[in-house]
Amino acid sequence: MRLALALGARGLGRVWPNPSVGCVIVKDGIVLGRGWTQPTGRPHGEVVALAQAGNAARGATAYVTLEPCAHHGKTPPCAQALIDAGIKRVVCATQDPDDRVSGKGFQLLRNAGIAVETQCLQEQADAAHIGFFTRITKGRPMVTLKLANSIDGRIATRTGESRWISNAQSRAYVHMLRANHDGVMVGRGTSLADNPDLRIRTNGLDDRNPVRIVLDSNLKTPTQSVLGQTTDETPVWMCHGHAADTTAWGSTTANLIQCANSTNGLDLNDVLQQLGARGLTRVLCEGGGTLAAGLLSANLVDQLITFQAGVAIGADGAASLASMGIDKLSDAPRFTLKSLDKFNGDVMATWARS
Amino acid sequence: MRLALALGARGLGRVWPNPSVGCVIVKDGIVLGRGWTQPTGRPHGEVVALAQAGNAARGATAYVTLEPCAHHGKTPPCAQALIDAGIKRVVCATQDPDDRVSGKGFQLLRNAGIAVETQCLQEQADAAHIGFFTRITKGRPMVTLKLANSIDGRIATRTGESRWISNAQSRAYVHMLRANHDGVMVGRGTSLADNPDLRIRTNGLDDRNPVRIVLDSNLKTPTQSVLGQTTDETPVWMCHGHAADTTAWGSTTANLIQCANSTNGLDLNDVLQQLGARGLTRVLCEGGGTLAAGLLSANLVDQLITFQAGVAIGADGAASLASMGIDKLSDAPRFTLKSLDKFNGDVMATWARS
Repeated sequence: MRLALALGARGLGRVWPNPSVGCVIVKDGIVLGRGWTQPTGRPHGEVVALAQAGNAARGATAYVTLEPCAHHGKTPPCAQALIDAGIKRVVCATQDPDDRVSGKGFQLLRNAGIAVETQCLQEQADAAHIGFFTRITKGRPMVTLKLANSIDGRIATRTGESRWISNAQSRAYVHMLRANHDGVMVGRGTSLADNPDLRIRTNGLDDRNPVRIVLDSNLKTPTQSVLGQTTDETPVWMCHGHAADTTAWGSTTANLIQCANSTNGLDLNDVLQQLGARGLTRVLCEGGGTLAAGLLSANLVDQLITFQAGVAIGADGAASLASMGIDKLSDAPRFTLKSLDKFNGDVMATWARS
Repeated sequence: MRLALALGARGLGRVWPNPSVGCVIVKDGIVLGRGWTQPTGRPHGEVVALAQAGNAARGATAYVTLEPCAHHGKTPPCAQALIDAGIKRVVCATQDPDDRVSGKGFQLLRNAGIAVETQCLQEQADAAHIGFFTRITKGRPMVTLKLANSIDGRIATRTGESRWISNAQSRAYVHMLRANHDGVMVGRGTSLADNPDLRIRTNGLDDRNPVRIVLDSNLKTPTQSVLGQTTDETPVWMCHGHAADTTAWGSTTANLIQCANSTNGLDLNDVLQQLGARGLTRVLCEGGGTLAAGLLSANLVDQLITFQAGVAIGADGAASLASMGIDKLSDAPRFTLKSLDKFNGDVMATWARS
């Protein structure tokens, strides 16, 4: 199952709106087939692994990271494919949370006389499928918030110098994070100040660019920006409010998404619902401080990834998070430490919403 | 030598102005004696270990974390004690940096026909003796700065609520830090806002209270404070400027230390020189943000210990460091990550000045 989870992780960021499922076919201690959901979501991991195994799959065990699908979509259901291949036993990590299909995959297998075992490494599988699950249960993608700051929570000096606070290894990891998310999202402040590209500049990952999303209520980002000039190369989705003038961006191939306004900008719940409706399951927020604080305040951050560099900047530097209006500590959003790493002198920590 | 270093660590915080030296006497693979510098600095670690070994020390090897002293002070020199005991070989971690004695201990031993080996675990020994070395070479104690803050570098909400951001394990570790420092130091802001006690409230360590130091240029801290009311129980040193009214504090048993003024408060270099002149070798700064930023700006922080709790507070919360006036990142003080630990969900990192 650990191998199946590792295989499934390969598809993250390129299979939305589908889950990335890993599958391993084993008989007599020999691995006969390995598969994971392919780009665009087809074929599914089970079908890939079964094709590798061929006739040898008869009588084998299949390890699958998510309940095999039971409904006829663009392809026949994976549960039926496992039955047809003569699989004798299926070990599954976790169940599909969608009420319409949950348990039906298992039932189909059991009805065919296949032994089904569940909840194998379920916690790890639930973490791997959190994007798919969040979209099914809440209608929005899961949100990862990245914060890279000094020891005292600053992302730039008072003059705006920010290159570089975190080191090259930390920055390379951010490009890996972009690769395993469906979309990367910034606020207008970052879009205007940094004129970012938001694509992946790492060898071997540069064909895995996520959708680039800008939250810009009045569409103040110029179309002469890097984003505006590259809408043909990699998708750009501009989330704007009712009052925005869409003339300039309307002449590009960017996807314009009208969202509900809130008192100060866009309604973040609505923005994420709209992204979910368009199929995104995993979104990485790279700032700035206003968007990050807004997401945290609205309880919309599922995973937090912090990079802390060994440098002190002081209170006149730029803060990683804007004001959140918190009076009582009990009202402050809490996160649970999941993992901790040294990144060549930076501290990298992964946190989940408590 | 690892054992000798571990023994030496036991004395840190209670032997100033002396170094805390560990010593192990070994013959034929058997440990005959273990010693470390005793409270107040006498007897030295070598003498304690030799007394344990007794006559069996003849022909043995002594592992010592610092060059044995060669001068006659209150007690005869340790180098002579090793010679008199018939020690055959001395393995030493590092040399005394004081030009007046450096190398003389080794020479005394070699003149007596003892084999001397040096630089065994020198890096670790230099770190262990950094307080003693800093006082010898710079005239001031080494400074450890503790910062305990939220993910975004905040130490309180905008209303001042700060209990608790870091968890109980982190806070207990701070009491351990107090125990292995000679003094614990806060600025006036912390003294007024928190009315702190600054003593150790941990079973087994509560006889190891460091000197409590307040930097309070105008002596605004009331003598009715916890510090003012407990000067008889544990030393309190009030560092003040020329213009301070010393009437109130002069009637307590606190030690009043007049320091040079700077444009905004006390001259931190002078404060630390005065603490060094009074014998302190290791000082822990527990804040607040103004003192911490001042020490960092003046390049007076040797070791930084950060606790990061999984909570987000936002830019309207209180910053861990005050403004530092840094425009260019190349002017910001950099620190090298030395160790990293999970503290029951908090991240604890130790950094040394780069």
